[in-house]
Amino acid sequence: MTAKLRTALLGATGYSGLELTRLLACHPRLEKPLLLRREGDASGPSNLAEVFPALAGNGGYPLESFSWDKLRGHGVDLLFLATPHAVSRALVPEAMARGVRVIDLSGAWRLKIEQNRAVYGFEDQDSQLAGQLTGQAVYGLPELARAQIANASLVANPGCYATSVILALAPLIRAGVIDRQKGVVSDSKSGVSGAGKEPSARTHFVSVADNLSAYSVFDHRHTGEILEQLQLHSQELIFTPHLVPIPRGILSTIYVHLSRPMSPAQVESCFREFFAGTCWVRIFSPPQLPQIQFSLHTNYCDIGFCLADDHQRLVVVSCIDNLLKGAAGQAIQNMNVMYGWNEKEGLT
Amino acid sequence: MTAKLRTALLGATGYSGLELTRLLACHPRLEKPLLLRREGDASGPSNLAEVFPALAGNGGYPLESFSWDKLRGHGVDLLFLATPHAVSRALVPEAMARGVRVIDLSGAWRLKIEQNRAVYGFEDQDSQLAGQLTGQAVYGLPELARAQIANASLVANPGCYATSVILALAPLIRAGVIDRQKGVVSDSKSGVSGAGKEPSARTHFVSVADNLSAYSVFDHRHTGEILEQLQLHSQELIFTPHLVPIPRGILSTIYVHLSRPMSPAQVESCFREFFAGTCWVRIFSPPQLPQIQFSLHTNYCDIGFCLADDHQRLVVVSCIDNLLKGAAGQAIQNMNVMYGWNEKEGLT
Amino acid sequence: MTAKLRTALLGATGYSGLELTRLLACHPRLEKPLLLRREGDASGPSNLAEVFPALAGNGGYPLESFSWDKLRGHGVDLLFLATPHAVSRALVPEAMARGVRVIDLSGAWRLKIEQNRAVYGFEDQDSQLAGQLTGQAVYGLPELARAQIANASLVANPGCYATSVILALAPLIRAGVIDRQKGVVSDSKSGVSGAGKEPSARTHFVSVADNLSAYSVFDHRHTGEILEQLQLHSQELIFTPHLVPIPRGILSTIYVHLSRPMSPAQVESCFREFFAGTCWVRIFSPPQLPQIQFSLHTNYCDIGFCLADDHQRLVVVSCIDNLLKGAAGQAIQNMNVMYGWNEKEGLT
Amino acid sequence: MTAKLRTALLGATGYSGLELTRLLACHPRLEKPLLLRREGDASGPSNLAEVFPALAGNGGYPLESFSWDKLRGHGVDLLFLATPHAVSRALVPEAMARGVRVIDLSGAWRLKIEQNRAVYGFEDQDSQLAGQLTGQAVYGLPELARAQIANASLVANPGCYATSVILALAPLIRAGVIDRQKGVVSDSKSGVSGAGKEPSARTHFVSVADNLSAYSVFDHRHTGEILEQLQLHSQELIFTPHLVPIPRGILSTIYVHLSRPMSPAQVESCFREFFAGTCWVRIFSPPQLPQIQFSLHTNYCDIGFCLADDHQRLVVVSCIDNLLKGAAGQAIQNMNVMYGWNEKEGLT
Repeated sequence: MTAKLRTALLGATGYSGLELTRLLACHPRLEKPLLLRREGDASGPSNLAEVFPALAGNGGYPLESFSWDKLRGHGVDLLFLATPHAVSRALVPEAMARGVRVIDLSGAWRLKIEQNRAVYGFEDQDSQLAGQLTGQAVYGLPELARAQIANASLVANPGCYATSVILALAPLIRAGVIDRQKGVVSDSKSGVSGAGKEPSARTHFVSVADNLSAYSVFDHRHTGEILEQLQLHSQELIFTPHLVPIPRGILSTIYVHLSRPMSPAQVESCFREFFAGTCWVRIFSPPQLPQIQFSLHTNYCDIGFCLADDHQRLVVVSCIDNLLKGAAGQAIQNMNVMYGWNEKEGLT
Repeated sequence: MTAKLRTALLGATGYSGLELTRLLACHPRLEKPLLLRREGDASGPSNLAEVFPALAGNGGYPLESFSWDKLRGHGVDLLFLATPHAVSRALVPEAMARGVRVIDLSGAWRLKIEQNRAVYGFEDQDSQLAGQLTGQAVYGLPELARAQIANASLVANPGCYATSVILALAPLIRAGVIDRQKGVVSDSKSGVSGAGKEPSARTHFVSVADNLSAYSVFDHRHTGEILEQLQLHSQELIFTPHLVPIPRGILSTIYVHLSRPMSPAQVESCFREFFAGTCWVRIFSPPQLPQIQFSLHTNYCDIGFCLADDHQRLVVVSCIDNLLKGAAGQAIQNMNVMYGWNEKEGLT
Repeated sequence: MTAKLRTALLGATGYSGLELTRLLACHPRLEKPLLLRREGDASGPSNLAEVFPALAGNGGYPLESFSWDKLRGHGVDLLFLATPHAVSRALVPEAMARGVRVIDLSGAWRLKIEQNRAVYGFEDQDSQLAGQLTGQAVYGLPELARAQIANASLVANPGCYATSVILALAPLIRAGVIDRQKGVVSDSKSGVSGAGKEPSARTHFVSVADNLSAYSVFDHRHTGEILEQLQLHSQELIFTPHLVPIPRGILSTIYVHLSRPMSPAQVESCFREFFAGTCWVRIFSPPQLPQIQFSLHTNYCDIGFCLADDHQRLVVVSCIDNLLKGAAGQAIQNMNVMYGWNEKEGLT
Repeated sequence: MTAKLRTALLGATGYSGLELTRLLACHPRLEKPLLLRREGDASGPSNLAEVFPALAGNGGYPLESFSWDKLRGHGVDLLFLATPHAVSRALVPEAMARGVRVIDLSGAWRLKIEQNRAVYGFEDQDSQLAGQLTGQAVYGLPELARAQIANASLVANPGCYATSVILALAPLIRAGVIDRQKGVVSDSKSGVSGAGKEPSARTHFVSVADNLSAYSVFDHRHTGEILEQLQLHSQELIFTPHLVPIPRGILSTIYVHLSRPMSPAQVESCFREFFAGTCWVRIFSPPQLPQIQFSLHTNYCDIGFCLADDHQRLVVVSCIDNLLKGAAGQAIQNMNVMYGWNEKEGLT
């Protein structure tokens, strides 16, 4: 058997980072991952159990301070970044220069169009190098870009909402069956882990429980990803995120009009053909629709639909676990593609 | 001071019935309401506390077996029905004949168009009288039909989803500012009390918690009400209900395209002018949007909106407490209108 | 009719403060309350709706900066403090000097025994005056000390946990029927609003949901109140708080051994006699036990019990809404007692 | 490698059955398990996905009608029963006669003392054979009875509450350090899956959410198991179950008095020594206490404690996932012991 791959993860202390740590620690193709906290963060936790007491019973995972020397010393070939966008922009050029491949879970490298990137605000302090690398980064949705990911040095792991919306719409849009003039609506609902681990008035239990709210209407950062990947004009899409009183999971209810009448069987074929040969998308036949519970704790994206009796109004429902297919699981899937392994490895 | 009104309620044992019982018991214009269980239901509970143990501490509310004689004996002038649709169809003609006014919380009298009524399936066993009464029933949304309600003998209390959708859309549709060709989408989310008190696999805590699901896509019974009240064609609307892990509350996220660009101020004026002179609708100015928590345990319908920078794509958010403005509270409001009282009475 | 009372509230921005604001605003015996933020806190919110967006729809409540002159200018007779313990220690002596009566919701004045007060740590910076006032403060549990409260200038509103435990145990302990040698256990469970409004890792939705945890075992600050009011030795009590994934409510399950066998009827009489003449405690007859839902949004303390067939092992269950009978509601009740009004006023 | 074991499961349609199905399907030592529905239940589901729609995306699991011939045809060596108590009493004698080993998840075979068994009410219709088998059944808590389980033909899988209480108390009671005269209290809290899958008023989302309640005080069926396994007299124990608004997990807060003062280190040693050599119990060092989240989706029983400064009052906290260590996971662990496999197999 070939030698195991050496990986490192910077940013294990968020929700996605924790999931990624668990997946990396169990992946059969990997050496024990090197878990890093930010350089200079001397007062930071030395064990992930300090941040996540749930890990205390198992001894947790040691965290070391980041340095490039440490990465080289460990022979790290692949670096996962679960860091703020600007940190990722700053680190990746050096990683590329050192020949370390990167899977970045932030929004730093997902967007090709400058105007879309503006929402992140990292460009003011961006290096020239970072600007040049933007074009080389591959948007890491394996169902859409397997070949490019396989050869990529830098993979931009998609946003959680974007994953749920793009996978549900790509088959229809690529098949050209949607009346884009009537507009596409994605009403997306997410569990609270999607809002991050930082405590805030918004994520306080009392604010979330017994409640439901829309937020970032018309200005959520994932909008750019959806537009770019689906090649939609901004006026053709309304994407509205909602916060739901559940810890994890995303359900997107997507509304389109078909440009000509189709039968349910034709719509189903459109989905099934598009995802033929992939392993992490499950298509539900009508009248069955996916629910958030079905995909929780899995890497699946579940897709179902309902067609009106005019055979043109179409509702598509897609569900993912925002921390798995929407973040850490997809990162593992991307790694599997990058190294030519079975896409299911380490994810079942 | 004038004599207090004598009321009766048949069907106190559901969630809406319980809320209505509480409101009737506290309303300053009413005698103690007569609470009734179905005729012949001798083995039924004799006190509402048998059904809702939460009431045990206060002695609960006695329930008596229904009979027309009892109603006459108590001098009941107004009868509230929180009964199954078919029961309401059967009882109302007799009430009308006896000069008893009725506010019916079921779906029995809401729909004028026969095809829309078909979803309830009560017409097979319908009496001729019931058929004739259909046209006289007034759809009880006071913000839209105050004058007719004031004079009505039979008020059909609106459905909970329908209330949240109609109030949010009526100002725009009546002002003629919506591009109806592009379609109207209402993505509506409801707490579990909306699914009724009958235990089922669907309402089991384990099925609902940590979950979210769409249901009855394209065939929910409230669709007909929305279409009729807004005078939309069925192909112009997609209405999708969702079940949310909260006990009560509805949030509808509504998507429309304006037929010509408007400013946010113009949109806000459209809402404010429409509801001028009413007391149970609150308009939120951008960027503030209502959340479910804001209207819980109140009779308010909260409405806010967000306009895209193309000044045409418009997202409207409306929230109600499904058991109050969506059922029992609205019934009280209708009663207040029917008897010429302040619309706020008994609701604050 | 006599003139209405002028009140002020300092500290409306916490959960208890919000509840108290709502209650004060509706109380029929009161002028509109003066709502104050801390002196010098110029950058603080000028309206409570900035802190609680749920209030936005109603216009919220204006907040003014605190000063003694302002209190005098408004002719304030009664000041409610929902402030940190040390702030309350600092302000109350001045209020007393100015003849303003105080109901304090903090822990600053509840404890007579110095050792118990130590847990709050305010004594280091305590003034001599404050030390002297400690003895004059009345512990504001009206069911136990109505007469003293009526005449008090300074009422220390009890802690939420303490209220639920003391009310459940006082009848048994005062009747001398408990075998104190075997120890008293209170296993208490609270909703998250009890942990305060400040966001923290502990109150993050993802930490609380799908979880349950014990905390502050043997060192919760309310222990001293319970011991003092029940005149128990510290070794006779184990009090263990738990955090439950609900927004509000407390349920205490209390375990005692009777010193001699009693019948259920005798136990029930013990409770009923003790609370005869009070209006905010509801006794449940076996086998009915109170649940948290029953007392939510009310000022009731609900008490039930279950006696083993040895007629000695006794489980008492008590429930309150931690923000009402456990805080703001009890403060109103204390005010009603202090001014000789019906104890129910403003609370139904 | 040796041939894989052939197993069958009767009763896959409950929550424990579903978990067990998933675990059996992935266990590396097993052939694909035979999933059975009750004999004669011809109208029953033919696939588990009909009962649990979450399985639809994966094709689910086929269910066949039970018959002894089918078991023999498949060469089943080990039969899991997740059936009602009386069904298990009726089936096991035949299984024993046919040389099929059984792990029974019901309460049918857990109790040696007739009086304790009476709570199940199955003895009226019990066969003579069943009565004789009672003595041979081994209580399947591997941490207490590994050797007997290894040789058992019939293993009675423990109750979920019982597992959490017995594991937390056995080290202390066997070490003789508890003052039993002062009594032992277990205040236990369970998620709703513990109440079973059958919909009822009690498990309706609206009854459970925002609520907490004690139930079956002094008469819960698991009490007998706890008494028997810990050799306590009934008067020495108070066990109170509570229903918590979470889908799964149990936390037991256990109160004891030590018969002589001990240090925290001595208490910790007592636990660590007792569980030395086992793999599914995690001991937490003070001040760390387990929380329900920590053991969810694992087979661990987590145990922590807090000792008062009198070194005698002791609070022990234990947590399990009620469907894993409290049911299906423990069944797998028992199988591993019965067949001499590593106790972790199929559980990580």
